Amino acid sequence: MRAPADSQDSGLTGPLLIVNPKAYLYGDELVRLARLTDELAGQFQIPTIFTAQHADLRLLSEHTLDLTITAQHMDPIVPGRGMGHVLPEALVDAGARAVVLNHAEHALTLAELDATMERAREVGLSTIVCADSDAQCRAVAHLGPDAMICEPTAAIGTGEMDAGDYVERTTAIVKDVDPSILVIQAAGVSRGADVARVLAQGAGGSGGTSGIIKHPDWREILSEMYTAIRDHATTPTR
Amino acid sequence: MRAPADSQDSGLTGPLLIVNPKAYLYGDELVRLARLTDELAGQFQIPTIFTAQHADLRLLSEHTLDLTITAQHMDPIVPGRGMGHVLPEALVDAGARAVVLNHAEHALTLAELDATMERAREVGLSTIVCADSDAQCRAVAHLGPDAMICEPTAAIGTGEMDAGDYVERTTAIVKDVDPSILVIQAAGVSRGADVARVLAQGAGGSGGTSGIIKHPDWREILSEMYTAIRDHATTPTR
Amino acid sequence: MRAPADSQDSGLTGPLLIVNPKAYLYGDELVRLARLTDELAGQFQIPTIFTAQHADLRLLSEHTLDLTITAQHMDPIVPGRGMGHVLPEALVDAGARAVVLNHAEHALTLAELDATMERAREVGLSTIVCADSDAQCRAVAHLGPDAMICEPTAAIGTGEMDAGDYVERTTAIVKDVDPSILVIQAAGVSRGADVARVLAQGAGGSGGTSGIIKHPDWREILSEMYTAIRDHATTPTR
Amino acid sequence: MRAPADSQDSGLTGPLLIVNPKAYLYGDELVRLARLTDELAGQFQIPTIFTAQHADLRLLSEHTLDLTITAQHMDPIVPGRGMGHVLPEALVDAGARAVVLNHAEHALTLAELDATMERAREVGLSTIVCADSDAQCRAVAHLGPDAMICEPTAAIGTGEMDAGDYVERTTAIVKDVDPSILVIQAAGVSRGADVARVLAQGAGGSGGTSGIIKHPDWREILSEMYTAIRDHATTPTR
Repeated sequence: MRAPADSQDSGLTGPLLIVNPKAYLYGDELVRLARLTDELAGQFQIPTIFTAQHADLRLLSEHTLDLTITAQHMDPIVPGRGMGHVLPEALVDAGARAVVLNHAEHALTLAELDATMERAREVGLSTIVCADSDAQCRAVAHLGPDAMICEPTAAIGTGEMDAGDYVERTTAIVKDVDPSILVIQAAGVSRGADVARVLAQGAGGSGGTSGIIKHPDWREILSEMYTAIRDHATTPTR
Repeated sequence: MRAPADSQDSGLTGPLLIVNPKAYLYGDELVRLARLTDELAGQFQIPTIFTAQHADLRLLSEHTLDLTITAQHMDPIVPGRGMGHVLPEALVDAGARAVVLNHAEHALTLAELDATMERAREVGLSTIVCADSDAQCRAVAHLGPDAMICEPTAAIGTGEMDAGDYVERTTAIVKDVDPSILVIQAAGVSRGADVARVLAQGAGGSGGTSGIIKHPDWREILSEMYTAIRDHATTPTR
Repeated sequence: MRAPADSQDSGLTGPLLIVNPKAYLYGDELVRLARLTDELAGQFQIPTIFTAQHADLRLLSEHTLDLTITAQHMDPIVPGRGMGHVLPEALVDAGARAVVLNHAEHALTLAELDATMERAREVGLSTIVCADSDAQCRAVAHLGPDAMICEPTAAIGTGEMDAGDYVERTTAIVKDVDPSILVIQAAGVSRGADVARVLAQGAGGSGGTSGIIKHPDWREILSEMYTAIRDHATTPTR
Repeated sequence: MRAPADSQDSGLTGPLLIVNPKAYLYGDELVRLARLTDELAGQFQIPTIFTAQHADLRLLSEHTLDLTITAQHMDPIVPGRGMGHVLPEALVDAGARAVVLNHAEHALTLAELDATMERAREVGLSTIVCADSDAQCRAVAHLGPDAMICEPTAAIGTGEMDAGDYVERTTAIVKDVDPSILVIQAAGVSRGADVARVLAQGAGGSGGTSGIIKHPDWREILSEMYTAIRDHATTPTR
């Protein structure tokens, strides 16, 4: 019942793609997107974070090879009580290799975030922590996450990119604290060109939710985004 | 990938046993307890609620036949956004047939509880709602749950039963509102004799967490509890 | 320093007006509205609930005579720890005579609501509890509040009244549980005619927030609402 | 009705005393402690933070001269809606000059903390932000508070001081980020000797809750603590 951990890399090296279906997909449809993503991740040889509802993590880890299966939240509990809370060990057992924390739709207190990151380290899950403002990006970077999703809350789900310099600015803030933190910029990203742009602006990863899920042709949009990442990675002078 | 729904009854008819491992068990060990419980549930022909971490629901529904696989919490979201929240549809797809809501360790606002119960009805999950004081038991009963767990919060996990008349009193309060609600009394229950007592006091189900999980011989304690339920069910005059 | 409790009635007998400035007003401006309301409440001889920020409760109780000074929230703590939480005893000492609980903008878990209502009874504060759906109205009514604000959350602050039968329906639900609970209907109320209508539909009180605060002439809108209440109270056949 | 702002200094320069009655005191008793503290603060000429329930802030600002009247929490709302939440402007109007945020008994999400500190700056309140672990202390320091309370949550209210090097370590962490942040160390402090020790270890302020409130002679314990601070401040070589 244990997921084949050794065959899956943590994947948190960039440039990478993140596919974050949130609660849009589950079961068969989710597996369909995951297998398609897995196929393309293998073809393009690009590390890929793929998140899912907790109930679907094991299903995805059993049906994919190259994705970093990622939980969308967990709680800082240890085995024992904690009715209704998400146990880190159970996620690892189900095949998760990373966890997203502090998303605007599930914000954590600073103490909870700190304790949950500690638990992630204990069980071997990579941490992908969300932050919004410059101050929040800086504070989270000092907590030592493996990756961050910098995202202006007001832009989530809009398909609109920040008109200003949010991407460069927050990426620089995080890198200034710790260059090893992979910075994902995905707010408002819905095309390959958007992915290319945020990578050019310094991000180590991009992708998204509605830009992918709601696209009429998943293979087309994923290929477009993977192509942007590959082209960025192979550009000689940056 | 769809769980075999037809082969599993909702199970919310009493007298029944509830096995609630909370976050004590996951993966292989959880499957071991679930299969053992499933075997005994079949032998004794007694309806059984078995809860699990969300990540393990599908695993359990694939490895058991007679248990009502039950989620320990869910959120009132619909397919779409809701990063980090538990989608009801995903639980059903993973084989869950019921959900516990409003446990003292994951309390809900009244508005959330109302909305989540509505969602449960929409997706076909039975609702098992927790309440503590007399007033809370009465209020929850008026929300129309399929079952309730009446539990004095201070007694959770203590292995001590309420010395007073909590069981009779709260069971009567709920039944007075709606006799069709199945009342589970499990606080402080750790032996077959405890199960027998709460059933004699009017409860429609019993069981527990630490009383079972921490017992050195799961088969022994489960058999003891199932025996108490069978004996109660077959007692001629009550 | 103790507020003149004896000179102020609990006021929770209808028909009454509720003026709920939320966080729109504070300090001098709030006192100005409170004194004006107090003057008109005395003239019309109509019981009036007037809510305020915690920091302004004492100020209002010192500057008014006939208003039921009401807190907008409190916590179920007892004197002791509870940093950052609102102590019921401190509200009473500051002159509050009632407290609004479970507003959609500050929802409480069922256990918190139950415990806070218990604390209100202990310190002698009248309870005014908010509820939204039919099910929530019924559940809250069973907790035994002195008054309820039935309010479809989606309509708060819109200035639009529910087109259907929300007012009659929820008022009847509450009265069916306990006729002594005063039912306040204020969602979308912005004119005297609105007040007249909800009273005709069975409500025991009305009033509001933005309909009053944003009106260019406070004396005019308050007089209009008080007139509607007086006319309703003195209508011979209802 | 406006509090005499000019006559009260922000007080966030050390070494200082913090008297934090939490919810132990209110009304007359709180005023008695505040006036006594005010008298001694004047005699010793030592800056003093004095916190209170929101309902008592105005009372204290009217009855004291030299204390930095401080709220125990506030919300990041602006004038408008926000029923049951604490409006920053109302606190300033009531005479508060500072606010404690993120206490372990009222933890904030990182986004809330960020937004509330922004609001504090807008209305001119000094910020005193709590943190627990090394990582939390570092993260909070990067948010730019005026002062911090570093406190191992497990020690709150115990009267026991951390046996290890918590005080030196966390003080150094904060000072390393920004030397201008005043670091308050008060966990387990109950005597003048405790105050002397944490100041010697680098803290810029100390004081407490139960160590003061529960002492049978407030004048004695306050004098003892003020003496420790004065002696520390006048020690020639440090």
